Amino acid sequence: MIVAMRSDASQADVDVVVQRITEHGLKAISLPGGERVAIGIASTIPPEVRAPLTELLEVMPGVDHVAQVSRAYKLASREFHPVDSVVEIKGITIGAPTFTVAAGPCAIESRDQLMRAAEAVKKAGAKALRGGAFKPRTSPYAFQGLGPKGLRYLKEAGEAAGLITVTEIMDQHDAEMIAEHADILQIGARNMQNYALLNAVGLLDVPVLLKRGPGATIDEWLLAAEYILCQGNRRVILCERGVHPLDRTYTRYTLDVSAIPVVKSISHLPILVDPSHAAGNRAYVPALCLAAAAAGADGLLVEVHPDPASALCDGPQSLSLGTFETLMQDIRAFCRKKRL
Amino acid sequence: MIVAMRSDASQADVDVVVQRITEHGLKAISLPGGERVAIGIASTIPPEVRAPLTELLEVMPGVDHVAQVSRAYKLASREFHPVDSVVEIKGITIGAPTFTVAAGPCAIESRDQLMRAAEAVKKAGAKALRGGAFKPRTSPYAFQGLGPKGLRYLKEAGEAAGLITVTEIMDQHDAEMIAEHADILQIGARNMQNYALLNAVGLLDVPVLLKRGPGATIDEWLLAAEYILCQGNRRVILCERGVHPLDRTYTRYTLDVSAIPVVKSISHLPILVDPSHAAGNRAYVPALCLAAAAAGADGLLVEVHPDPASALCDGPQSLSLGTFETLMQDIRAFCRKKRL
Amino acid sequence: MIVAMRSDASQADVDVVVQRITEHGLKAISLPGGERVAIGIASTIPPEVRAPLTELLEVMPGVDHVAQVSRAYKLASREFHPVDSVVEIKGITIGAPTFTVAAGPCAIESRDQLMRAAEAVKKAGAKALRGGAFKPRTSPYAFQGLGPKGLRYLKEAGEAAGLITVTEIMDQHDAEMIAEHADILQIGARNMQNYALLNAVGLLDVPVLLKRGPGATIDEWLLAAEYILCQGNRRVILCERGVHPLDRTYTRYTLDVSAIPVVKSISHLPILVDPSHAAGNRAYVPALCLAAAAAGADGLLVEVHPDPASALCDGPQSLSLGTFETLMQDIRAFCRKKRL
Amino acid sequence: MIVAMRSDASQADVDVVVQRITEHGLKAISLPGGERVAIGIASTIPPEVRAPLTELLEVMPGVDHVAQVSRAYKLASREFHPVDSVVEIKGITIGAPTFTVAAGPCAIESRDQLMRAAEAVKKAGAKALRGGAFKPRTSPYAFQGLGPKGLRYLKEAGEAAGLITVTEIMDQHDAEMIAEHADILQIGARNMQNYALLNAVGLLDVPVLLKRGPGATIDEWLLAAEYILCQGNRRVILCERGVHPLDRTYTRYTLDVSAIPVVKSISHLPILVDPSHAAGNRAYVPALCLAAAAAGADGLLVEVHPDPASALCDGPQSLSLGTFETLMQDIRAFCRKKRL
Repeated sequence: MIVAMRSDASQADVDVVVQRITEHGLKAISLPGGERVAIGIASTIPPEVRAPLTELLEVMPGVDHVAQVSRAYKLASREFHPVDSVVEIKGITIGAPTFTVAAGPCAIESRDQLMRAAEAVKKAGAKALRGGAFKPRTSPYAFQGLGPKGLRYLKEAGEAAGLITVTEIMDQHDAEMIAEHADILQIGARNMQNYALLNAVGLLDVPVLLKRGPGATIDEWLLAAEYILCQGNRRVILCERGVHPLDRTYTRYTLDVSAIPVVKSISHLPILVDPSHAAGNRAYVPALCLAAAAAGADGLLVEVHPDPASALCDGPQSLSLGTFETLMQDIRAFCRKKRL
Repeated sequence: MIVAMRSDASQADVDVVVQRITEHGLKAISLPGGERVAIGIASTIPPEVRAPLTELLEVMPGVDHVAQVSRAYKLASREFHPVDSVVEIKGITIGAPTFTVAAGPCAIESRDQLMRAAEAVKKAGAKALRGGAFKPRTSPYAFQGLGPKGLRYLKEAGEAAGLITVTEIMDQHDAEMIAEHADILQIGARNMQNYALLNAVGLLDVPVLLKRGPGATIDEWLLAAEYILCQGNRRVILCERGVHPLDRTYTRYTLDVSAIPVVKSISHLPILVDPSHAAGNRAYVPALCLAAAAAGADGLLVEVHPDPASALCDGPQSLSLGTFETLMQDIRAFCRKKRL
Repeated sequence: MIVAMRSDASQADVDVVVQRITEHGLKAISLPGGERVAIGIASTIPPEVRAPLTELLEVMPGVDHVAQVSRAYKLASREFHPVDSVVEIKGITIGAPTFTVAAGPCAIESRDQLMRAAEAVKKAGAKALRGGAFKPRTSPYAFQGLGPKGLRYLKEAGEAAGLITVTEIMDQHDAEMIAEHADILQIGARNMQNYALLNAVGLLDVPVLLKRGPGATIDEWLLAAEYILCQGNRRVILCERGVHPLDRTYTRYTLDVSAIPVVKSISHLPILVDPSHAAGNRAYVPALCLAAAAAGADGLLVEVHPDPASALCDGPQSLSLGTFETLMQDIRAFCRKKRL
Repeated sequence: MIVAMRSDASQADVDVVVQRITEHGLKAISLPGGERVAIGIASTIPPEVRAPLTELLEVMPGVDHVAQVSRAYKLASREFHPVDSVVEIKGITIGAPTFTVAAGPCAIESRDQLMRAAEAVKKAGAKALRGGAFKPRTSPYAFQGLGPKGLRYLKEAGEAAGLITVTEIMDQHDAEMIAEHADILQIGARNMQNYALLNAVGLLDVPVLLKRGPGATIDEWLLAAEYILCQGNRRVILCERGVHPLDRTYTRYTLDVSAIPVVKSISHLPILVDPSHAAGNRAYVPALCLAAAAAGADGLLVEVHPDPASALCDGPQSLSLGTFETLMQDIRAFCRKKRL
């Protein structure tokens, strides 16, 4: 941590800052510059001290600003865990060197719809079935999901087709029930900073797919992952699904493809990409899937529906079964990962 | 709702769209344009039909896009409720013609801290005491609040000073406990689209302060309010607290002052402003408080701390008691509201 | 164009709007809805009438808002020019079915630097040499380019290596001089809405590479292209180079990969991608190059420097010659375009 | 400047960085931390060295990132010019302690329109007349301004009403002609980083109003001011006019009111606010004008039109003469500035 003093700070101001750092058991080094003094902290700062100490220093007399030299997260950081994490579920792996595709409808609408989708995505090469039983919808008047009945269909369809399953959890008090029916719990983008939920799934022994909030910086996203990791659950999978767009004329969000190499460089966690929610329009989904594969993602989360035109949720962004099959063939040709 | 067809859509495409609308019991009018046909829906569309019908039409052959003529929310809309809503709590009103200031520390740290803050803000003219017992923090290593003990301090301090109280709820299962200790439940910005939480507070008979998510459009914010309103709880107070900034060099968020006249024009709900979280730096807070008052806000939510330099949370953005007192005098001079 | 009236608009309000449309020689159709009336314009609206008529209608009594059914640009639109445009320069083509790579240093620093870069990028498979003689820099104290001397080096290096050349124009009064030395004039992101410059290059008979402004919507970008096209110059190449990021911690901008399929669907103009400026960090450039190729871009603009560590401009984002060679081999493996 | 090394950097990496800094005649101090070494520069860094040295250090082996302790601009900074700058033109002052209002139509449309506007805004209390003769328009099909004829009307109307005048310059080669007709040259938001234009007006002896680009950070804006200042022209007036919005449903841009106290704290330059372009809707303009005055702005730039419904440009955001008169009375009541 570096404390940059104002150019008009007095020596007394500097001394008090140094003293305050020393009181925390840390070593301070004063660094006189041309225009101003900077004070560096030359010790390891315990994680629980970093945030309060930063806030404390920022308001002291003569302080201009405080710059962080180290990152705020540890368990999610590649610096302290250089090897890629691989999450294994029932023999399916997510993370290097595999490219793993999860596909299925946005919302589970009926047993028949899900069985058909599961069979088709399995045949096309998907390893996981996605489908929502509890749906977060912007409007209270939109379809909210089938609830527990949907979970039962999901379990049945996954087992029938030989696919692992992923579904969203919205209420921490549903955790056990959902974990009994699905293999991966998904934290949706709107809940990325719902800390009650993050803490709850952090205490479970079940993989968690953590979507990036559309307004979250990469550091905020990794800090949300840190919430789960520091409770003990180390099986966290990240999922990029688009950030706030400049305008919403053509796409709902802007898929941040550069998040893939950035996350790969600073974190060991696997990262999937969800181009369906990012685009909000199926016409753009295949191009974004190929871009994600080429950029080094560990897999995809794609919305596929047996009959998009009659979907109760997010129909415009769902691929038909035929388009998905073609897409999977294209991905095989372009994917940089060894195993698909 | 207007369905704009593509310029190369066939008459058959148009006919099928018209038929699909008619099947929903709605009247469709075809509007031939110079380049393309547009199809208008000439009936009232029930709220529960709007979202699924839009999604269905968007994916039909020949359709370019669907434009909404009416808004997606009803209960939050001024069109259907022309008179300003006023929320009354123990004789204190929020909403026209009063300007109501809620002040206090970001986090409740001790009984003494809160009692001192309560007494001072009351003396300066505040009507409500704010203070967090459950704190949503970006880092899992930061101070997370005192929990139930904090709630007891809040109730005691509010009663001692003669202030109503507001505190954040993060877990829907805490609702009853919090409602027993505080007068207004605050939904934080990170939870604006936590629908499990919105539904839960919608079923209570207690006022809710709904902060705008930093990435939420105004329509998304009003739809979040609609979640609460349509469950039966009509005492919703909006709170603008800053949207994602272009850069974070000087402020944490960008206070969207124009949201004040916009919300006043399209909704009847009262709107407060929280400049402390928006700025993240106390030096800019007084100017933003005065701007909010001048722009027509119904009040403020301001962080005030007896000793900002030792605050456990958000110290840099908290005003000292002295600065707050001066600010309240300035607001009296500039406020456009009749009563303060 | 659809004029949505307010729900409390009177019949007289509606009549006056209809009359105003009719006065412009256009046909208006009134569309009574459940809550409000909408008025559609059922004739082709001349381009020069659209903007002023929209503004005029928006302020009339009883009008809620005006929605555009058709797009504001014509010459850039695929609807009116369904076939992909291909720009040909000295036998090199940009646009389907070729994938064209332009590479070279950010700034031309010396004859030797440019000759070495040109030879190396040609050998690796690039078809065009990029290099700036006039550099737009955020700080007035940064290196501003070699000016006319740089242009002479560019011409010489391009001819020696057998590469076409592209360089930025910042002042419309330099147009002829630059056009004598380079094959493609680049309009930089900061000048995307410098209309004096757009008009000037629109009058020339030389291809123009139009970078997207970091804050520009796709429609604003295509309208900037329309400025050039409607002056008579039809050889416009678009270039996506990143939009404003949520934060600037890891990348300078967010590369908007979804702009590639969007532009392909609504416009016939070729689109290149510049991942170097978007990333601002060479570590992320290869992944973004591959993503752009996989998403269907027509080519790349990549910064390559013989000695990045001593570059006078944008060294951190420049690839070394060796990395670029490896990248070109990877692109050959992944590119969806037929010819490279 | 602080160079943060990677946690796995070798001592040799550190030594080479120190050596490179020393070669520039600067003093380097190594600061060993708990996890990584940081290297500080303990001398004044000449402005022309900062940018290239930063870029050079960022790409050296073992370097994680480079943090700036000092700011990139000098002449625009309050640190080196603690007293508020005041720009005086023909006896009218802009900057503390005066609040100065410039008003008038977006575009000059006719002699009569401008004469009427000038007389009315003068009577209501404005000190300056604004009006565009050269109009930057997003669409090439929109009205582009009257050009030189408009300039003559502006000069005549300003003199007749006793108002100073401000008008936009889009082409640096028009500078002399415009300076002969107007008192203040305006650089529009789209041209904030048109460096050819900034350099040209920097060489003139005429005040310049520099609008903030909608995507520009405050540092980028002050660096654009620095371009003008370092050419010798010290009469720069800043103008905030809104940044990119989260959505464009209700306003065209988001007025960044917090930019006012931020600029006041870091710079000595006067700052005006243009709520008309920010809002894009006259209904929200008065509230934003009052907010700007309350937040400490030095004045306003407001669009006023004798007949907004027939305006050729930006009619929806122009105030009528009557509304403007009422607004000026309200500002008198709320303005924190001594003199209006």
